[in-house]
Amino acid sequence: MTTTDSAQTGVAAANIGVVGLAVMGANLARNLASREGNTVAVFNRSPERTRTLVSEHPEAGFVPSETIADFAASLQRPRTAIIMVQAGAGTDAVIDQLTEVFEPGDIIVDGGNALFTDTIRREAAVRAKGLHFVGAGISGGEEGALNGPSIMPGGPAESYETLGPILESIAARAPEDGSPCVTHIGTDGAGHFVKMVHNGIEYADMQLIGEAYDLLRRVGGLSPEQIADVFTEWNKGELESYLIEITAEVLRQVDAETGKPFVDIILDRAGMKGTGTWTVQNALSLGIPVSGIGEAVFARGVSGRVEQREAVRPTITARPEPAKVDESFVEDVRRALYSSKVIAYAQGFDLILGGAEEYNWEINPGAVAKIWRAGCIIRARFLNRIAEAYDRNPRLQSLIADPYFAGEVAEGDAAWRRVVAIAAQSGVPAPAFGATLSYYDSLASDRLPAALIQGQRDFFGAHTYGRVDRPGVFHTNWSGDRNEVEQ
Amino acid sequence: MTTTDSAQTGVAAANIGVVGLAVMGANLARNLASREGNTVAVFNRSPERTRTLVSEHPEAGFVPSETIADFAASLQRPRTAIIMVQAGAGTDAVIDQLTEVFEPGDIIVDGGNALFTDTIRREAAVRAKGLHFVGAGISGGEEGALNGPSIMPGGPAESYETLGPILESIAARAPEDGSPCVTHIGTDGAGHFVKMVHNGIEYADMQLIGEAYDLLRRVGGLSPEQIADVFTEWNKGELESYLIEITAEVLRQVDAETGKPFVDIILDRAGMKGTGTWTVQNALSLGIPVSGIGEAVFARGVSGRVEQREAVRPTITARPEPAKVDESFVEDVRRALYSSKVIAYAQGFDLILGGAEEYNWEINPGAVAKIWRAGCIIRARFLNRIAEAYDRNPRLQSLIADPYFAGEVAEGDAAWRRVVAIAAQSGVPAPAFGATLSYYDSLASDRLPAALIQGQRDFFGAHTYGRVDRPGVFHTNWSGDRNEVEQ
Repeated sequence: MTTTDSAQTGVAAANIGVVGLAVMGANLARNLASREGNTVAVFNRSPERTRTLVSEHPEAGFVPSETIADFAASLQRPRTAIIMVQAGAGTDAVIDQLTEVFEPGDIIVDGGNALFTDTIRREAAVRAKGLHFVGAGISGGEEGALNGPSIMPGGPAESYETLGPILESIAARAPEDGSPCVTHIGTDGAGHFVKMVHNGIEYADMQLIGEAYDLLRRVGGLSPEQIADVFTEWNKGELESYLIEITAEVLRQVDAETGKPFVDIILDRAGMKGTGTWTVQNALSLGIPVSGIGEAVFARGVSGRVEQREAVRPTITARPEPAKVDESFVEDVRRALYSSKVIAYAQGFDLILGGAEEYNWEINPGAVAKIWRAGCIIRARFLNRIAEAYDRNPRLQSLIADPYFAGEVAEGDAAWRRVVAIAAQSGVPAPAFGATLSYYDSLASDRLPAALIQGQRDFFGAHTYGRVDRPGVFHTNWSGDRNEVEQ
Repeated sequence: MTTTDSAQTGVAAANIGVVGLAVMGANLARNLASREGNTVAVFNRSPERTRTLVSEHPEAGFVPSETIADFAASLQRPRTAIIMVQAGAGTDAVIDQLTEVFEPGDIIVDGGNALFTDTIRREAAVRAKGLHFVGAGISGGEEGALNGPSIMPGGPAESYETLGPILESIAARAPEDGSPCVTHIGTDGAGHFVKMVHNGIEYADMQLIGEAYDLLRRVGGLSPEQIADVFTEWNKGELESYLIEITAEVLRQVDAETGKPFVDIILDRAGMKGTGTWTVQNALSLGIPVSGIGEAVFARGVSGRVEQREAVRPTITARPEPAKVDESFVEDVRRALYSSKVIAYAQGFDLILGGAEEYNWEINPGAVAKIWRAGCIIRARFLNRIAEAYDRNPRLQSLIADPYFAGEVAEGDAAWRRVVAIAAQSGVPAPAFGATLSYYDSLASDRLPAALIQGQRDFFGAHTYGRVDRPGVFHTNWSGDRNEVEQ
C-alpha cells in the first residue's frame, strides 16, 4: 500500500504522527520514520510543505494528510501526535484542532519550546477532555531532531507507556552506556521546565567559555587560532563537551573574505530567544539563586545595547593595563572555567529541584543529568559526574556538597581566585566567573552580611529579625529607647 | 461641626479620604489631616479601627464613616480617595466598592505597593467607568507616611490638578530647595513602576553596603564599632545618605542581653517582600541588564537557604587567608562602594527609561531623582548629581556617560579593582561589587566575547550573525563546506 492510498482510504497505518513540518518537525518526522517499527503520519497547515517533504523523502514512507480529520484517521489507537510548531498561539490552535478529532486515551505531545506554565494549563485542559497531553522538551536543534535529540517529556506517567518506546527509538544514545536520552521527567509541565533550565545552563556555559576566551586573548595575549588549540586540548579532559568542541571550531575558522579570524568579523551582539530569560525569572519567583545564568543573560543584554555601548565607551578613558601573566595562566583559566561551570550547573540543578518542590513533580536529578549526556547542546562527559553525585546521595543539598565536586573545586580554588582577581585588575569583564565565585564564597561563609541588611530592614521598616542564640521574632525600638522587644 | 455630625448628616466636608487604616494608612491620614486646608475622611473595613484612630487623634478632625456610601457622601467633588490596603485582591475589592459609590470625574488613588501591570489593568477598568485611577508609589515606610513620604503618582495627567496639591502638602521636602518630593510620573502604571525600581535600587544599595561592611570586617579586621565610625565618616562625603547613616546606627548598637555587637546576634538571613524580585524579572523582560540589583536579590536568596548553607559549608575545607591590607584599604572600599553605587543607579535609571519606552510613559528621569532626595529609603545627596546629569543631557545614554559620573568612577578605578580582586583572593563574597565592575568593563570594551557566543549559536542552531564590515545577515555552513551565505 502506498502512503497516498492509506490517507485516502483512512486506514490507520501510522503509529505516530507529526503536526508542523518546518525544519524541526520535518527532521523529527524523518528520524521517527527511520526507526524500525515506526510508520509516521504527517500533517502541516499548508499542504505544500507536506507534499514537499513526502516527495523529497520517499524512503520515509510517510502517511500524509491534508486535513486534520484524515490525519487522525491515519493513526492507530491510542493516537499519538507530536506538535512541532512555533511555541505560542499556534500551539493552542493545533491542540484545539486535535482535541476535536482525537478520542479519549489519545496522546497529544507538544515538542515545541513552550513555557512550562502554558504546558501546565494545556495539560489540565486536554486532560479534562479525557486525552493525554505531554509537554516534551526536545533539545539538539535541527541536527538533533534528525539524528537523535535529548528528549524531556512531562505529562501523565501512563502516557509514557505508549510514548516512551517511540521516543526512546529516536533519542540520542549516551556514549557511555548506550542508553537513550529520554526519561519521563514528571507530570504536566515538568518536561518543559527541565528543558527551560537546560537552556539556562547552556547560556551560562557559553558565557563562561566566552569569558575564558576573552581572558586568554586580552590578558594571555593568545590569538584565536592559539586559543582554538587550547580548547581542543581542554576537550580531552574534564571539560570535554560539545560546546568546548565547537568553540575550537569557531575560533579556528578564518573569514574567507578578509583572511581575518572569523570571530573578529562577527558583530559582538549575542541574540537570545527567551528561554534564558524565563529561567532567571522563574528562579527569582522560586527564590533560587542562579547568578551564573543571570549574569549570562545580562551579558547578552549588554552586548545588544549598541547605542548605549557607543555612547559610554568614549567617556571611559582611563583603562587599566592587562595584568602580566605567564604560561601558567592558561591552566588557571581552565581551572576557573571548570569551577565556575560546576557552580553554574549546581545552581541549575537547584532550580530543577526548587521547581519540583513548588509544582509537586517527582524529578530524579540524576536521571536528568543522564539524558543530557548526548543529543543536547550541553552534552558533556561532566554530566556523568553529576549523575554519580545524585546516585551517591539523592538528597544532595548542592552539587558542591558532593565529595567529588567539592574536591575538584577545592583543587582549583587558588587558580579560580587568581583569574577573577586578574580579570578585575585588567579591565576584562568576567561577570559569570565572578558571580559563581561569589556564590561559592557565600555558601562557604560562616556569617553573611545579610545580618546587617536584616538590621537595616528592622531599622527603617520594622521588618523584625531572628536571634542566633534563641528562637523568636524580635524588633528593636530604633526610634525610641533602642530596646529589643519580642514580637 | 464635629466630625461625627458630618458623617451622620452626609455633608461633604472632606477634600480627601483614606480607605484602609492599618499603620501606613493611619499615618498617611494623620499626615494629611495635619496640613492646612485638608479635611480627611476615613474608612476601614472593620469600623473598630476607624473608631480607634478617631478617638486617639481628636486633633486630626477626621470625618469617619462606617459604610462606603457614607464615606463617599462625606467627600467633596471631585471625590478623591487614597486606598491604603495590602496589595492584591484586597485592592481590587476596595476599587469595586468605590466605583459603585463614586461618580465620573472622581479620583481613586492606590497608595499600596501594587505591581505596575495590575495598576495598568485597574486604570483601564476604572477609566472605562469615567473615573480616574492613580497608582501612586509611596516610599518612606510608616515614619515617611506620617511625616513626609516620597510619592510617585501615575495615572491620567489631569488627575494631578486635583491630587497634586494635596500630595504636595504631605510629601517630604528636599533639603536642598524645599521642593516637595512628588511629581506626576506618567500615565497608568508609571508611578508603581518607578516605585518598584526605587525598591530594586534600594536592594542593591543595601547589598553594596553589606559587602563594604563584610570586607572592612573580614579583610580590614575592623570591629563593628570601628566600622560604625567609618560609616559615620563616609556619611560626610559623596556617600551621604539615609542608608549609610542607619548602617552606622545598626553597627554601633550593642545587644543588651549579651553585650555583643547587635549585628552579631542577628540571624544572617535577609528577608524580602517581592519588589526586588519584580524589578529584576521586569528588567529581564525588557532586556535591561540590572546585574547590581540581580546580585542583591540573589544574595538575599542565598542567605535564606539555611539548610543548603549548612550542608555545603562543612564540605568546603580549603579556605584562603584574608589578603594583607593596610589602612588605605578603608578608602579603597569607600571608592569601590561609590563606584558600584553609581553603576547600580545607572542600571536602575536604564530600567526606568526602558519601561518608559515599552509602556509609552513620558518619564523625566531627573524629576524622579529629585523626588527621591527626601522621604524615601534611598534618599541621598547623590541624587542631586543624578538630577544634574539628566539636566545637562536629557537624552543621556547612561549615568556613566555623564562627565561628572564618568570622572568620579575613573578617579576610583584602581581602588575599585583592588577591592574586587582582594575580595576574590580573600574568599569574601562581593557579588554586587564584582557584577557592577564587570558591567562597567563590558561597556568600556571595544569588543565583547558575545561575538564568540554568536558564532557558537550560528554553529549549533543556525541563528545567523552580522558582520562588522558590512550590513546583512549571514550564516556559515558549519556542517558542510564552511562557506558563508548571506541570508
